[in-house]
Order: sequence, then C-alpha cells, then structure tokens
Amino acid sequence: MANGAVGIEEAAAAGRTRRRVVVVGGGFAGINAAQALSDLPVDVTLVDRKNYHTFQPLLYQVALAVLSPADIAQPIRSILRDHPNIEVLMDEAIGFDLEQKHVRLKAGTVLVYDYLILATGSTHSYFGHEEWATLAPGLKTVEDATEIRRRVLLAFELAERQMLEYGTHPPLKFVIVGGGPTGVELAGSISDIARLYMRNNFRHINTKEAKVLILEGSPHILGMYPDDLQQMARKQLEALGVELRTGAVVTDIQPGYVMVGQERIDAVVTLWAAGVQASPLGKLLGVETDKKGCVMVDGYLNPKGHPEIFVCGDLAHVEENGRLLPGVAQPAMQMGTYAAKRIGMLVGREAGSEGTATKPFHYFDKGDMATIGRKAAVAKIVWPFKAHWHGFMAWLAWLLVHIYFLIGFRNRLGVFRQWAWTYLTLQDGARLITGSQDLPGWQHNATDKN
Amino acid sequence: MANGAVGIEEAAAAGRTRRRVVVVGGGFAGINAAQALSDLPVDVTLVDRKNYHTFQPLLYQVALAVLSPADIAQPIRSILRDHPNIEVLMDEAIGFDLEQKHVRLKAGTVLVYDYLILATGSTHSYFGHEEWATLAPGLKTVEDATEIRRRVLLAFELAERQMLEYGTHPPLKFVIVGGGPTGVELAGSISDIARLYMRNNFRHINTKEAKVLILEGSPHILGMYPDDLQQMARKQLEALGVELRTGAVVTDIQPGYVMVGQERIDAVVTLWAAGVQASPLGKLLGVETDKKGCVMVDGYLNPKGHPEIFVCGDLAHVEENGRLLPGVAQPAMQMGTYAAKRIGMLVGREAGSEGTATKPFHYFDKGDMATIGRKAAVAKIVWPFKAHWHGFMAWLAWLLVHIYFLIGFRNRLGVFRQWAWTYLTLQDGARLITGSQDLPGWQHNATDKN
Repeated sequence: MANGAVGIEEAAAAGRTRRRVVVVGGGFAGINAAQALSDLPVDVTLVDRKNYHTFQPLLYQVALAVLSPADIAQPIRSILRDHPNIEVLMDEAIGFDLEQKHVRLKAGTVLVYDYLILATGSTHSYFGHEEWATLAPGLKTVEDATEIRRRVLLAFELAERQMLEYGTHPPLKFVIVGGGPTGVELAGSISDIARLYMRNNFRHINTKEAKVLILEGSPHILGMYPDDLQQMARKQLEALGVELRTGAVVTDIQPGYVMVGQERIDAVVTLWAAGVQASPLGKLLGVETDKKGCVMVDGYLNPKGHPEIFVCGDLAHVEENGRLLPGVAQPAMQMGTYAAKRIGMLVGREAGSEGTATKPFHYFDKGDMATIGRKAAVAKIVWPFKAHWHGFMAWLAWLLVHIYFLIGFRNRLGVFRQWAWTYLTLQDGARLITGSQDLPGWQHNATDKN
Repeated sequence: MANGAVGIEEAAAAGRTRRRVVVVGGGFAGINAAQALSDLPVDVTLVDRKNYHTFQPLLYQVALAVLSPADIAQPIRSILRDHPNIEVLMDEAIGFDLEQKHVRLKAGTVLVYDYLILATGSTHSYFGHEEWATLAPGLKTVEDATEIRRRVLLAFELAERQMLEYGTHPPLKFVIVGGGPTGVELAGSISDIARLYMRNNFRHINTKEAKVLILEGSPHILGMYPDDLQQMARKQLEALGVELRTGAVVTDIQPGYVMVGQERIDAVVTLWAAGVQASPLGKLLGVETDKKGCVMVDGYLNPKGHPEIFVCGDLAHVEENGRLLPGVAQPAMQMGTYAAKRIGMLVGREAGSEGTATKPFHYFDKGDMATIGRKAAVAKIVWPFKAHWHGFMAWLAWLLVHIYFLIGFRNRLGVFRQWAWTYLTLQDGARLITGSQDLPGWQHNATDKN
C-alpha cells in the first residue's frame, strides 16, 4: 500500500492525473474493494443497481420474518460517505468496451476506467426452467425475501380461512428444493415459525402440523461440509421435524405440487435453493467463462490478457487445491480487498516505485457455518483453531460472527436486540404480509368470486 | 361490564349460546373494540384484509426512511393471541345482509353475527381524478409508505446521475398537495432528509438545495388547529426552508409537474395529502352516508334502525358541538371501546340484568399534535391541562405520546432506539429503494435504451 501511495505522489508531482477505478457491484467484494481503495490516490466510482448493500447471510431471517430488510441492508452511500475519493452511482452496467476501457450504464452514462473491478455476483439458476421462478422463488435479494415471507405467512392464513369454512385444509407442506446452507436455513426457520412463533395465534389450524421437506438432488445435504457435520445437520434437522430426501431430483414444478420423477409431492409453498448462475455481466465482458457464466481468472483475479480488470466474488471462477472457492461472503470480501491492494501496487509501479511485487490471491479459509433453526448449527472452524462444532456452541459462534461482520453499528445493535427478543419471548419481529394475497395453486372454493 | 357477564351466565344456564360479534377492520377502532370485547362472554371474529395493524401516526416516518414497516406494524393475530374468545381472519368483507345478519367475505365465507362493528376507516380521495393516484401517491398503508420512500430517495439518485453526465439536473422540488398534519409531517421530514441525513452522501449534487413546497387549497395549513399554532407551524416550516402556499387549488397533476390554475409548478416528486374518503364498505351497508361516504350514526354509533350495528373510527360520521370528529387515532380508539362496552350492556340486558343503561358516546378530547421535522411540533393540549405548545417541548410531548401508544413492547423499544440513533447521529435508518427504478416524468436522456 505504501508503495502505491508513494508512487502516485511522484506521479502527481510529474503532472499526471489520478487513476480512475470503476467498481461494478456493491456486494461483499465491491464494498470491501471500495473501502480498501479509499486509502489510495485513485478516484473510485462504485456502481450498483440498488442503493443499498445487502448482508446476504442473514437474508433468510428476513424471509422468515425475524428481521426487517433495513436491519440487514445499508445504503451504499452511507457506508462510503466518509471517503471523498469514492462516488456512488445507482445505475446498471449494461456493456463494456475493453479496448476503450469504458463501462456503459443503462441510463446512458459511459464511465471511463483505468482499472475495473467487476463483482456483480450470482443469481438463481432454474436449470433452463425459467417458468419455475414464479412458482418457487429463490433467495438472493430483499425483494425475494419479502416474497418468500409473504408466501409462507399467507399459507397459514389461507389454511385458517379454509378450516373455518370447511373444517379441513390441504396439508401445510413446505417444500424446499436444494439442501445447501440456504435450503437448510430456510427449512429450520420455517419449522421454528410453525412450532414456536405462531403458537396461540390461530384458533382453527394447528401450526405444529406443518411439514417441511428438503429435496436434494445429490446424495448429501450441505455437500461442502465434512461427513460428520453433514450427519449432525441431518440429526438436528430431523429433531426439528424437517424431512430430508437426498438423491431426489426435481423434474417439474407446478402450482401446488412438485414432481420428483413420476412422484407427485404436494406443496403449499415451494422455495428454490438449488442452483445459482453467474450474473450475466460476466459474459458481457467477452472473456472466457465457465459453464455457470463465471469468469475464468488467473491468480491475480485478472481475465486472460487484462491485468487492468479484476473479477471478484461469486462472479469469479477461482480454484484452490483443485477446488472451486465457495460463493459465500468470506472469499468475496478477500478478493475485493486483494484487487484493491493489487491496484495500489500497479499504480505505484506505474509511477516508478520499486519492490512492488505482490503475491497471487490466496483464500484464507476461516471455516464455514450454517444454522439449523433457533438453537443449532454446524460449524467447520479452520481458524483460529481447527474444530467441527455442532448444536448450541456452533449456533453461538454463528451468532457472534454474523453480528461482528454486519456493516454499521446501528444494524449490529438492531439485529442483536431483535435476536435477543426473539430468543427470549419466542416472538418473531416482522411478520408482515405485503403485496398480493394469493398463492399459486391455492385451492379456492367454488363460490370464490375472484 | 359486570352486568353483561352476569347476564350471559344466566343465558348459558338457560341453554342459550354465546352471542357472536363480528369486527370488520383491524385499525385503531377495531383493535380497541376487540380488546374490550375480550372480557365479555361473546365470541368475536375480527376480519381484516391485512394480517397486521398499522400504527398510522408514524407511517410518514416509514415513508421518509426513519423507521421500518415492522417497527410500526404488528400482526393482528399476535396482538390478540391471548384472548381465546377472539379469532382473526385475514379476508375482505365484500357485502352485508342486514336482515339475515350476514357478512360476506371475498373468499366465499359467510359470517353470521349478532352484533357487527364496522371500522374499515378511510382512503385517499383524489376528488374524482383517480388518474392522479399513480402520479401523486398518498399515505395510508405500509405499501404507500414504501412507495413514497422509493420516489423521494430515487429523486436524489437520479439527480446525482444526471449531474455526473450533464453537469446539471432539474431542480429537486418536492410538491406536497395538502397542508394538514400529514402534509406538514411529510414536508418537514423531506427537508430533514435533504438538509441533514444525506449530508456527505453525494459528490455531485447539493442535497440542501432541494425545495419542499406545500400547496394547500384552503386559506390555512393545519386547519383544525387554533390560529396561534397555525402561525407557529408556519414559522417552523419556513425555518426548515419549506415553502407554503395557501389558497392554492391544484387543478391538474402530470408527470413532472402540477398545475395550480394556469400556473405550472415543476415537481420531481408529487405527494398527495389532500383528501380522504370513507372506505367503500360504508355504502355497501345500505344505510345513510354523508358525501364522503361516512355512515351517519346516532349517539350510540348505530346507523338508524340498527342497534346491533356499530360504525366506528373514520368511517363514522359523528358530530359533537356541531363539529365533525377528526379522522385520527384517539376518536377511533374511543369509539371502538365504546361499541364493545355497549355490546356488553346489550348482551346483559338481553339476559335480563337490570340497570344497564349506558350513555351515548362522548369523545374525550385530549388534544392534537403534529410534528414539523426533527425538533419541532405543535400541540394543542386539552387534557390533563390546557395549553398550546410549539417547538421543542411540543416535539418531546409528541415523542412520548407516540411511544406510549405504540402497540407492543418490542415496537416501543425499537422505535425508541431508532429515534435516539437518528437524533444523535443524524443518520436515518431505512433508506432502501425497493421496487422499480423509475419516476413518472423523470427526464431521461436521449441515449436511454429503456
């Protein structure tokens, strides 16, 4: 860093202008890159479609009514407002000119860069079945989270309504397609809602009879975790009443049911936690991508032949020890910071400073954790010591780590308050149904005038 | 109350069933009615289209990004969950049969009642110009609030974008149609956002140059307040840089501007705080209504000839001393409680108990208050002492009263925390733009591909 700073002072003395860095994407990679660039003698423009950064690891808690969107989202402008060399633009990148070093934005603006950091992440993949998107929403954005919240809560309301009128209702079965961390977290939370938070709320239905089923196509849930933790997760889920089916490949999704081969599984709500694909901007770059659309990068996070472009976070295809880095927060944050440091080095070298070689990117893996409902989790801890934890201890570790990494003191305080409240009183915090009052496939009765 | 309880025990002894009360609407009147009915030997069904109660007096703080929806909304089920004689149904009343004593619901259910409490409140009135609704949203629901938030915040983002590209942008002028409490609160809050909360957030625009204009058709803002407080409110608004025009009747609203007679006033965002009309359910009742659609009721809140029906809150046309009761929380809460007590009395009388005459409804007016930005307000205090307050003291009183009346300890704590945070740090809490990224009438540039 010092090299970069020295270098640019020399450059400025020689009458050269400051280098321009464009960061596309305000997720973990983009925000961390911008923060690390704030100390460097460069001018930074961060572009995002949204005006806020989303703390994605807690998005499922918004989906399941524990937290509010504003608890886990923070305006990008206010995160970066104290760095005068950074400007924020709410707009969408729609094209690149790598020759001219231009980024074209949707509203028409063209940004010129000397260095580009592209970190627009990933989105759901329905494996070519885009028609499933409205039937089985996934969880990537705040809007996704409120939509999932709406569907889950509405299912209970509609069942109560039918019970009152007919004395019966279709089974409250929630099907989650995909048994990775998101699927497991959603499943555990729905079970919590049904068993705990809704007690005494309904007069006609028994919310405890709600069923949660995870359909995982591969032989294992939480595939990236070691065997013992997979086993523990399975046990903890089963203790919550969550049913698991592995090796169950979903072949069709329709309103009200899911097909696994020839078997029809009824579902009042189906949620998608199965596949992700890279943001389409990776392909727009015009460089090599993998089959998910992730950009192939070298050890410096550069696409081939473009040392001025860095691709970070979920959008980058980075392998270490023959294994692809997971699409979670830690690698994204580290890549963002790395790209910024590397730019500092290049700017310094350009200005003639010496000894500025930096090593290729290396992921410093501290471990992974996933929660399973209100008091359980699995944690593969790699740093500061190696351990496999499960149950309450793992859950406590999860809690502390997530509070720590939340951006902004206000959000930390708010989330902590809400968790303490929920834990102590068994009441969730944000059980609002906003938007439409219909569910796809819900069986209305014959006299329904809608 | 005791009479009612005794009466019904006798009735039960004689083999008669408990009386059924249907409450339509989960606003202040409906919730207060239900809570007061919880002690009575009746079976209560509360019906609302939403699954939550909205604390409307703080809705403008959601619209202006200080609070989150979940801070001021509370699921009706959880408010009433400890009362076993009350059930809650999320559905919409679409018709009444006063002969059969039936309420017809949208999903097809028919509820039979012995007593009906109708409290579905009011909605915006655009005075026959329904096409203005999308151009100038009003503030009645959580969805309205997030839409206003979206538009106000987006205006700043779009101006920054234009400034970057063209070096200029249309003036950031926010026009509020209507100078009642809602209009004044919105105006003060937008001024706060522009002057305080957004400082250092933008690099190209100066948010302090934003203008707020209130257009009030009558000769006075805050018409229901005494003269001295109207004057104080005017001074306080002007100190915040809010421009006021009274006697200014809006004749047309178009994307990007508002017409007052022949004069065109440009506006990046126009908000509607001018007119309200009764919920359409008043007319569906088939009894006499006033020109706003409010149901004409007698001193017992009964429409003529229907002592078993109570109309409460904004939907009721109730005059005292020749003046219509204002459509705010206090009268609604008192009417709800009154209707419940009256039902208790009637149930008791029916069972043969004596001395059960209750007086007609009387509004116990404790006063009115409206805030004007971050540290000022006007308060007409009637109880426990008479006073006209303005400025900081009035604002403090406003704060305490609103914290006190919020339903639920969690919400009180959360709102208090957020207010303290905002006050101390000058940072608002929920500045998220969700939904579309367009504003009606925003001048996109020529190369815009949308």
